Amino acid sequence: MTSAAKKLSQTAGLPPGTLVYVGDHKKQTARITLFDFDVNQYKEQEIFSVEECFPFKDSETITWINIDGLHDVDVIEKIDSRFGIHPLVLEDILNTEQRPKIEDYGDYVFITLKMFNYNPELDEVTPEQISMIFGSNYVITFQESQGDSFNPIRDRIRNNKGRVRRMGADYLAYALLDTIIDDYFVILERLGEKIELFEDQLMGDTDNTWPHKIHQLKREVILLRRYIWPLREVVGGFQRIESNLINKATGIFLRDAYDHTIQVMDTIESYRDMLSGMHDVYLSSLSIRMNEVMKFLTIFTAIFSPLTFLAGIYGMNFQHMPELHWVWGYPFILVIMATITSLMLIYFKQKKWL
Amino acid sequence: MTSAAKKLSQTAGLPPGTLVYVGDHKKQTARITLFDFDVNQYKEQEIFSVEECFPFKDSETITWINIDGLHDVDVIEKIDSRFGIHPLVLEDILNTEQRPKIEDYGDYVFITLKMFNYNPELDEVTPEQISMIFGSNYVITFQESQGDSFNPIRDRIRNNKGRVRRMGADYLAYALLDTIIDDYFVILERLGEKIELFEDQLMGDTDNTWPHKIHQLKREVILLRRYIWPLREVVGGFQRIESNLINKATGIFLRDAYDHTIQVMDTIESYRDMLSGMHDVYLSSLSIRMNEVMKFLTIFTAIFSPLTFLAGIYGMNFQHMPELHWVWGYPFILVIMATITSLMLIYFKQKKWL
Amino acid sequence: MTSAAKKLSQTAGLPPGTLVYVGDHKKQTARITLFDFDVNQYKEQEIFSVEECFPFKDSETITWINIDGLHDVDVIEKIDSRFGIHPLVLEDILNTEQRPKIEDYGDYVFITLKMFNYNPELDEVTPEQISMIFGSNYVITFQESQGDSFNPIRDRIRNNKGRVRRMGADYLAYALLDTIIDDYFVILERLGEKIELFEDQLMGDTDNTWPHKIHQLKREVILLRRYIWPLREVVGGFQRIESNLINKATGIFLRDAYDHTIQVMDTIESYRDMLSGMHDVYLSSLSIRMNEVMKFLTIFTAIFSPLTFLAGIYGMNFQHMPELHWVWGYPFILVIMATITSLMLIYFKQKKWL
Amino acid sequence: MTSAAKKLSQTAGLPPGTLVYVGDHKKQTARITLFDFDVNQYKEQEIFSVEECFPFKDSETITWINIDGLHDVDVIEKIDSRFGIHPLVLEDILNTEQRPKIEDYGDYVFITLKMFNYNPELDEVTPEQISMIFGSNYVITFQESQGDSFNPIRDRIRNNKGRVRRMGADYLAYALLDTIIDDYFVILERLGEKIELFEDQLMGDTDNTWPHKIHQLKREVILLRRYIWPLREVVGGFQRIESNLINKATGIFLRDAYDHTIQVMDTIESYRDMLSGMHDVYLSSLSIRMNEVMKFLTIFTAIFSPLTFLAGIYGMNFQHMPELHWVWGYPFILVIMATITSLMLIYFKQKKWL
Amino acid sequence: MTSAAKKLSQTAGLPPGTLVYVGDHKKQTARITLFDFDVNQYKEQEIFSVEECFPFKDSETITWINIDGLHDVDVIEKIDSRFGIHPLVLEDILNTEQRPKIEDYGDYVFITLKMFNYNPELDEVTPEQISMIFGSNYVITFQESQGDSFNPIRDRIRNNKGRVRRMGADYLAYALLDTIIDDYFVILERLGEKIELFEDQLMGDTDNTWPHKIHQLKREVILLRRYIWPLREVVGGFQRIESNLINKATGIFLRDAYDHTIQVMDTIESYRDMLSGMHDVYLSSLSIRMNEVMKFLTIFTAIFSPLTFLAGIYGMNFQHMPELHWVWGYPFILVIMATITSLMLIYFKQKKWL
Repeated sequence: MTSAAKKLSQTAGLPPGTLVYVGDHKKQTARITLFDFDVNQYKEQEIFSVEECFPFKDSETITWINIDGLHDVDVIEKIDSRFGIHPLVLEDILNTEQRPKIEDYGDYVFITLKMFNYNPELDEVTPEQISMIFGSNYVITFQESQGDSFNPIRDRIRNNKGRVRRMGADYLAYALLDTIIDDYFVILERLGEKIELFEDQLMGDTDNTWPHKIHQLKREVILLRRYIWPLREVVGGFQRIESNLINKATGIFLRDAYDHTIQVMDTIESYRDMLSGMHDVYLSSLSIRMNEVMKFLTIFTAIFSPLTFLAGIYGMNFQHMPELHWVWGYPFILVIMATITSLMLIYFKQKKWL
Repeated sequence: MTSAAKKLSQTAGLPPGTLVYVGDHKKQTARITLFDFDVNQYKEQEIFSVEECFPFKDSETITWINIDGLHDVDVIEKIDSRFGIHPLVLEDILNTEQRPKIEDYGDYVFITLKMFNYNPELDEVTPEQISMIFGSNYVITFQESQGDSFNPIRDRIRNNKGRVRRMGADYLAYALLDTIIDDYFVILERLGEKIELFEDQLMGDTDNTWPHKIHQLKREVILLRRYIWPLREVVGGFQRIESNLINKATGIFLRDAYDHTIQVMDTIESYRDMLSGMHDVYLSSLSIRMNEVMKFLTIFTAIFSPLTFLAGIYGMNFQHMPELHWVWGYPFILVIMATITSLMLIYFKQKKWL
Repeated sequence: MTSAAKKLSQTAGLPPGTLVYVGDHKKQTARITLFDFDVNQYKEQEIFSVEECFPFKDSETITWINIDGLHDVDVIEKIDSRFGIHPLVLEDILNTEQRPKIEDYGDYVFITLKMFNYNPELDEVTPEQISMIFGSNYVITFQESQGDSFNPIRDRIRNNKGRVRRMGADYLAYALLDTIIDDYFVILERLGEKIELFEDQLMGDTDNTWPHKIHQLKREVILLRRYIWPLREVVGGFQRIESNLINKATGIFLRDAYDHTIQVMDTIESYRDMLSGMHDVYLSSLSIRMNEVMKFLTIFTAIFSPLTFLAGIYGMNFQHMPELHWVWGYPFILVIMATITSLMLIYFKQKKWL
Repeated sequence: MTSAAKKLSQTAGLPPGTLVYVGDHKKQTARITLFDFDVNQYKEQEIFSVEECFPFKDSETITWINIDGLHDVDVIEKIDSRFGIHPLVLEDILNTEQRPKIEDYGDYVFITLKMFNYNPELDEVTPEQISMIFGSNYVITFQESQGDSFNPIRDRIRNNKGRVRRMGADYLAYALLDTIIDDYFVILERLGEKIELFEDQLMGDTDNTWPHKIHQLKREVILLRRYIWPLREVVGGFQRIESNLINKATGIFLRDAYDHTIQVMDTIESYRDMLSGMHDVYLSSLSIRMNEVMKFLTIFTAIFSPLTFLAGIYGMNFQHMPELHWVWGYPFILVIMATITSLMLIYFKQKKWL
Repeated sequence: MTSAAKKLSQTAGLPPGTLVYVGDHKKQTARITLFDFDVNQYKEQEIFSVEECFPFKDSETITWINIDGLHDVDVIEKIDSRFGIHPLVLEDILNTEQRPKIEDYGDYVFITLKMFNYNPELDEVTPEQISMIFGSNYVITFQESQGDSFNPIRDRIRNNKGRVRRMGADYLAYALLDTIIDDYFVILERLGEKIELFEDQLMGDTDNTWPHKIHQLKREVILLRRYIWPLREVVGGFQRIESNLINKATGIFLRDAYDHTIQVMDTIESYRDMLSGMHDVYLSSLSIRMNEVMKFLTIFTAIFSPLTFLAGIYGMNFQHMPELHWVWGYPFILVIMATITSLMLIYFKQKKWL
């Protein structure tokens, strides 16, 4: 959360449009893959020099260039000049703390949003920034690190499954967006299972790690919420763009993606409600437990105080205490003590403290 | 709640428009019933092969096809191609975690929303998805499982009661929608009675199952709220559709359905307010109880501490303790003890602790 | 609150426009009174057969028909057919759980809202539904039970006071609406006095009936809020109607009624704020009281534990305890005990526990 | 707060436009002062009979009539008929519980809002209603009681300072409005100082008057908020009036007054936030204090319970207790007791309870 | 916070447009620096007499006048008359408690907003007001005190880096605005680190300085929020200005600045959420700690009460207590005591109190 401010504060004072990669620096070089297809044919190719992509720009076919790794600023800049992208767009691509947004630059549309990767070892969700530029016949995607999220789309292109090869660059962009949104449900499912598990375990449990656990989940939800909230504007903005770049037939699919976004947001909101409900339940558990402890203490005190006092009485050393000389004095006092104890127990039973 | 994310995550990566039924799989085959009517006549028919419906498509009369059971994807697909429905609509029908929505596709309107079934044995409310497609002279409804919610409409058609046979497919769609919304009041009534019962029982009760019970009710309200909230947009959208499919006379009925939706939402909101008020009352009860327990403990301690101390004093073995040799020493000390006790009791009376 | 859902669930499944009275059934027959007036003259008449009203429909003068008691569905239906009212309107009139609303049907305008009756014996506020239909020269009002709320208007008509006889049916409708809104202030005044009284009594009081009392007031405010909130739309809608039915001169009065509605809502909102503030104050009182009880307990324990221990020491039976044989042993130990007690008291004084 | 409802409930049932003064009745007669000025000259005059004002109505110069005291309904009515003011306006002037508002009546504009007077003796803020009517060449102001808030404006007119004599009646109305808003900052300053003082004093203090003090401040803020909130609409409405009454040059000043209003509202909102934060801090203080008390109690109990028990053991009267006959038995047991005490103290030190 | 109201209350009663500096008075005289540049050349100059600036007003080149120190009202007034600035603008510049805003005066645009300076010694953030006026070929900036925030822009002008010398006065204004917004991230980073540090330290810690620390952070966030919230309107307003002053090419950069503003606001909102979460965690810690203390106390009481009672029994002085004469009486009673203690410990183990 706070790291966003941290990273952005590095660029304070630089002229806008200066290309600085603010993400974590990784060692691999950027990996570029290219798909070029139309209904009838497709070509898949790994690119080692960015210049290899350039001839595809002016071809009739749809070209999808995917770049894994943003630290190679040089590559980004070459694409910039060749595809005529505004420097601010490229600054936004490199700024991995960018808020999700969509911008229509006339000749091309720029989309940036977050993908979430779940690391099962650390039980942690980490955001990764995905940027997309699409023009009339090309889509360029930028990922922070290598991932396999787009594989279903790659398969669909290879096998000509679905509509992806029949429709334009806008549909490809939609399909990629939809894949990312679909992935959110996987993250939400994991989170939801965790919340349900916690709810079952929490009932009546006063383990003192709960506030920490609930707080952690809350932070995770705040993180997700922060990156997913602007998504509605992104998908909504995609729908509203009036441009030749967007085919009418794609609109109906965008409406569907929009619905999914709303559903993601609804789910996050109900998670928030449930988590704050869990905190209330935990606090109640603590109070209930405290009540029980106090009752226990009080019962012990209330029973033994009078008994100990009675024993103290007959432990006094007065010369003239007739009871001490009675033959049945000792048994008599024991009976009295038993009676007091019984009355106390009956009283507590009636008060429902026992 | 979380199951929605769970089910949707199954379809992540599939091309949009792929027909996958994400609901629970049941064993019965889909059951199809057909009504065909105009003002003068009606025909009711159980359909065993989906092809039997097709001739009705082009008839002048209003045709209502109801399909119970969504798992028979084959049936859905046949209807798709014959009635010219967009694949995304059919995907939405099968996706039983769909958010309620209305979509105008020009030739037909698609509505999906939730119905709630109360299971009295488990004391549980389960949502069921209802989808509806209506065109100029037909209505197709899809239910997850067999139910009798639409029976009142069936009776009205059979007996030519109300306006349903005099008006068009849009009115039939409205009537079905209205029936579902009316059913919400039954669920809300049950919920409201439970809340009132709980409120009466809760006063002064510190039973430790309350946080759980209140939390359960809250979850139920969150569930209802989540599915009913979008309904306003659905009914509002229905009203705003500008199309030949919607007769002007139906508009006035839709306004009425809209009012009912708002009323359902208002009721849910006041239930939320009341439930969070109940939690506050419960927490207060706990604190009050704690105060009482503490007072009890303190009174016992405050009375017996000085008495036991006094008894301890005269239990000391000093050789030179003149009081021990007084003839009236023992009665004297008992009187002192009684006096201390009385003063304490008076003090607590004044403090209103007793 | 919950009774609304209860009553509405009775009509689930009936065709819209079916006339069913969902309110409580009372024994008296409906009472119909009629006023017919223009600037120069007025006629007041009790009606025993609904047909007597019909001739007034087409007269030039303004006719006000008031019906007390909704259970006589037959009367309502006759008025329906004669005045050409849409069946849904009449369904809404009978449905006493209707949300306040205004609807423009072209020839007439339909308004329904709540009036509140305070029952001083039960110290309870009960809502009553008032419906109004007004056309170019008539106003029909429907009340659940007989009441005297409209008497001020009746007096104004009888005595030709104010503008009511000089202006049209729309002004009469406004005047009736304004009378109802004015009555809200009476209810709010009572509520406000109760809140102020409670605030004064609450300070430092930890009586355990407070949570219940505050919760009751909160429920009352939720009830009022629920019925009054939609009123803004009603009066706002009245202002916005563009129709020949509404005279321009009436508009300026409606603006005034709108201001009053906003003021009612503001007052209710500040009551809510004050009530939730009261709950906080009560919880603080409980905590303060608990702190005091605990301090008291601790002081007692802290003073008597060392004393009792010391007495216990010299109650031991060791043969070789030189102090026991000192002549001044007993006074000496008493002085030590007094010193310990004094030091403790000084310590607690310094800690401000005393 | 509640008194608003109380006063308004007095007028329930009266025809709209009936002139009833609902404020507190004071004994002095209304005091009327008049300013008549243009750029070159000004005249200041105390008026004893309302008719003296009338000639100024049609003069070219700007006339400002200020009326202190609303109880003299007769005066108000005469002005009514002479200046052609709508009866509802005059009703609003007399109704001192009126919500702040602005209304454009074509020939004149009516503004009503609240001024706040601080009474340092009672340490209380009381609202006073100010109403203003301005036409093309006159401004009439109505105050509940005599005050000196408008003196700065009077001085400016007398000394021809600022723009007030160069511009029209609209600018004078703005200047009066601005003076009132400026006065809010004085009230807010006092409130802010009180809050800061309280914040400094509150830290760690568990005095049981805090909930009351904080609640009082909260009520004061609720009161201010309630009367200042509608002000935004008033100033905003003033800006939006499209009328010959408003000079373009005044618009830029109104924008400034609008900014000030927003700033007043922002300040009130942050006060609310700070006050609810203070309540949290106080509750934490109570809990911290409770923890300390409990620790203290527990330490005492934990140290003296074992010691008293040990002393009890050797106070038993068994014949065969060899330790009792040891020569070093008594010193030995004292050493054991000292050891137990030391160990306990070390344990509590480690637990950081000491 | 409250100081804003304090300072503004000083000007209550003065005519609008009166120039009064409400900030803290400092001793240095205002320092004026001037940049004059176009693509080909630039001139940097320190100004000692304000008249030196005037010739630049009508030059073709872009002129940037920066004034450090607002207390020299004379300087401000001279600039006023020469550049034809409205008196209200200059009043706003001097009023250092001004809410951030943008105003279009036709010939020039006025912007005022806050910069934040972090004082590491006091660990405090103090706001400083920055005002900006820009016309077709000049920008005038006003700072409360000397600072180096604009140095990056100065360097860019000197070294002709970025676009600043190629574009107009509007771009320079944007660049200055962007520099200020970038600085916010530095402040947010510091705040975020503090919050994360606190979160790590807080877990399980019940130190009683936490409420104070959290409250301080909350106040800081409220302060930031109050000054940054209006920024959205400022940058949004900048974007929407339709004027020859704004070049189309600048619009795309403003969109970027707008995104940054939203991101700053999002960050502040999540800080608020996290801080209120921290308060909850702290309260839970207190309750958990209380529970532990209580358990400890209860265990001690429950173990030693019966033991002490038993010892008391055999400390009684009855003549006829056979156990006292048994040879094995003493060891026997010790065994019984050990057994009771063991059973208690087992019981507490089972209850998980140990």
